[in-house]
Amino acid sequence: MLSPTQLQISEERFSVIYTLSGNREEAYRKAEDICIEQTIEFPADLIPEDDIRKHIFGRIESFEQIESGYQAEISYNVAIVSGEITQFLNVIFGNISLKPGIRAEKVKFSPRLLQAFQGPRFGVQGIRDLLKVFDRPLLCTAIKPMGLSNKELAKLVYQFAKGGIDIIKDDHGICNQAFSPFRDRVARCVEAVQKANQETGGNSLYAPNITAPDRELNARANFAKEIGAGAVLIAPGIVGFDRMQALADDPSFDLPILYHPTFLGSFVTNPEAGISPYLLFGQLARLGGADIVIFPNYGGRFSFSEEDCHLISRGATDPLGEIRPIFPAPAGGMKLDSIPQMLEFYGQDVVLLIGGDLHRHGKDLIENSKLFGQKVKYP
Amino acid sequence: MLSPTQLQISEERFSVIYTLSGNREEAYRKAEDICIEQTIEFPADLIPEDDIRKHIFGRIESFEQIESGYQAEISYNVAIVSGEITQFLNVIFGNISLKPGIRAEKVKFSPRLLQAFQGPRFGVQGIRDLLKVFDRPLLCTAIKPMGLSNKELAKLVYQFAKGGIDIIKDDHGICNQAFSPFRDRVARCVEAVQKANQETGGNSLYAPNITAPDRELNARANFAKEIGAGAVLIAPGIVGFDRMQALADDPSFDLPILYHPTFLGSFVTNPEAGISPYLLFGQLARLGGADIVIFPNYGGRFSFSEEDCHLISRGATDPLGEIRPIFPAPAGGMKLDSIPQMLEFYGQDVVLLIGGDLHRHGKDLIENSKLFGQKVKYP
Repeated sequence: MLSPTQLQISEERFSVIYTLSGNREEAYRKAEDICIEQTIEFPADLIPEDDIRKHIFGRIESFEQIESGYQAEISYNVAIVSGEITQFLNVIFGNISLKPGIRAEKVKFSPRLLQAFQGPRFGVQGIRDLLKVFDRPLLCTAIKPMGLSNKELAKLVYQFAKGGIDIIKDDHGICNQAFSPFRDRVARCVEAVQKANQETGGNSLYAPNITAPDRELNARANFAKEIGAGAVLIAPGIVGFDRMQALADDPSFDLPILYHPTFLGSFVTNPEAGISPYLLFGQLARLGGADIVIFPNYGGRFSFSEEDCHLISRGATDPLGEIRPIFPAPAGGMKLDSIPQMLEFYGQDVVLLIGGDLHRHGKDLIENSKLFGQKVKYP
Repeated sequence: MLSPTQLQISEERFSVIYTLSGNREEAYRKAEDICIEQTIEFPADLIPEDDIRKHIFGRIESFEQIESGYQAEISYNVAIVSGEITQFLNVIFGNISLKPGIRAEKVKFSPRLLQAFQGPRFGVQGIRDLLKVFDRPLLCTAIKPMGLSNKELAKLVYQFAKGGIDIIKDDHGICNQAFSPFRDRVARCVEAVQKANQETGGNSLYAPNITAPDRELNARANFAKEIGAGAVLIAPGIVGFDRMQALADDPSFDLPILYHPTFLGSFVTNPEAGISPYLLFGQLARLGGADIVIFPNYGGRFSFSEEDCHLISRGATDPLGEIRPIFPAPAGGMKLDSIPQMLEFYGQDVVLLIGGDLHRHGKDLIENSKLFGQKVKYP
């Protein structure tokens, strides 16, 4: 056994709600295991009655049966997170991600933990101010398919902007391929959106995909900003939530951030394990500084349920200290015909992301974009 | 429908083996869906008979029944990866991670795709050269529990090194907490390991945990290097495989890299979906430049199967062009008594990572460490 340790740390704790599978005994054992695995990762019987046991161990604050198993609230000392989003992820779902039957549902923050995060720079109100659109949901689309030349992609941007789409993003699979090099694409697309805005008097934004390795991510972000892009698209599942957060926190980088969900599906497709949509696309999106979170809507080509989407919408907007609410952007095979249903489900503070279906209503993409707008304004 | 597109790109393709759940028809539909979702993400019927259809679409190369469902080999044009590990992850398992019943098993590389990756700097042989240990498995342990002061942690480093442990790493939950600030800890632990090495004539390495947000990751990596740390520990599931790769590729950063699996469990705990252990802890570890990959051994406090561990061991060492084989480091509740079984299972090219159990064999950690060495040398 170790010698007793004394620690000078605050008593402040935050907590995580976990759903645990198995019978009561198994579920309770999982809760006890989380308290150790996520903190000291060491045989508990070798720790004396000291400050480590008192302050560092996770603590079961409540344990109760729910419809789908058991739910435990486990608290952690704020000091173990050290104000870093990387360690925050590690504490809430690090090693226990490797064990079956544990799902992190929701974080209950404490004041000091929240102070470590600035959250999104814009949020719902900031994006509306930027676009000068206050009375309706926002329209969004993607330029694709991969394989088009930059000239062709820029033409799409022009048409969409001319037709009144608010935010036009790169498809997330378009990065820096030889057939669509990043800097040339962004330059052309920025020019196209500016031309359309001048002609319409509108404020459409073009959002290039800056997901890229290591330093190249920042280089692309800076290039996008300097040449006049209106927003950026990033995939935190691939490059880390900390990279997204760093852009949101950087005073010299003042563009809105769209969070793309690619590569994150394994966290949410197993109902018995992983991270809830509320936490992954709601709370973590906001801690990581996203202004708009894209996710697969129910009823499209993915398999998210209505309940999942409801949770994301709540996670994006529930009170969270000083951290701003953000826009949910349901996507994934949405059609113009789905608009009335989406508006009923999400209300007015939503970004409607419709991609392929915009190409199905005649050859004129400007007209199709206008049709999209009409369906949103007069559903 | 779009106008036909002409593309000047190579014909070279690589492929991914996917396991697909459902009956034959459902599984085949999933294979067809992957070809579209992972590439153009656009209605296929709107694409003319052009170069996008010919070159960019994924292609089903084979489809067959296996014990656990169906398996498809799907090929992609190398050009769509653009030599970037971020886009490589996006192509092999990006949006389809959000759909159920799809597991990425293995990548079959093409020459040009492999050329984009340098892989680990050291690998098995490089680590052996560094440690001057050629004839036995390597011994590894972690300093913990979280909550100890840096002085206490450094004392552990000294004792473990004095007892002959080859690699002594930070526990992955220890980062930069107020009770264990990073720079002070690394300075003390480096001093401790150097003192022990001087006394024993050995070459033990201390590996601090450099997992941290954004630029702080590089700052900690550089600090570790400059002050004389022997290796580093990093969690690519949290900070991205691209950050790990960048360190491995950086000519000025010449320390071995240990890959910690925290936060990655959701990819591997659902047998019907996610990424296989072979790919996640084998192939991706090597592409990302890890020299040693830590994972939960079967029979410990996690639930990995023997088959999972066998796959990881193979993924770490199977031929992969010029990319070096790396050390598997089975861990997670391993005991000194497990050593004979682990050696039989993994052979000699393994890093045995034993943490808490080293504290269970009497109070003298130097003696316990020596016992660990004896059990490895004379199992």
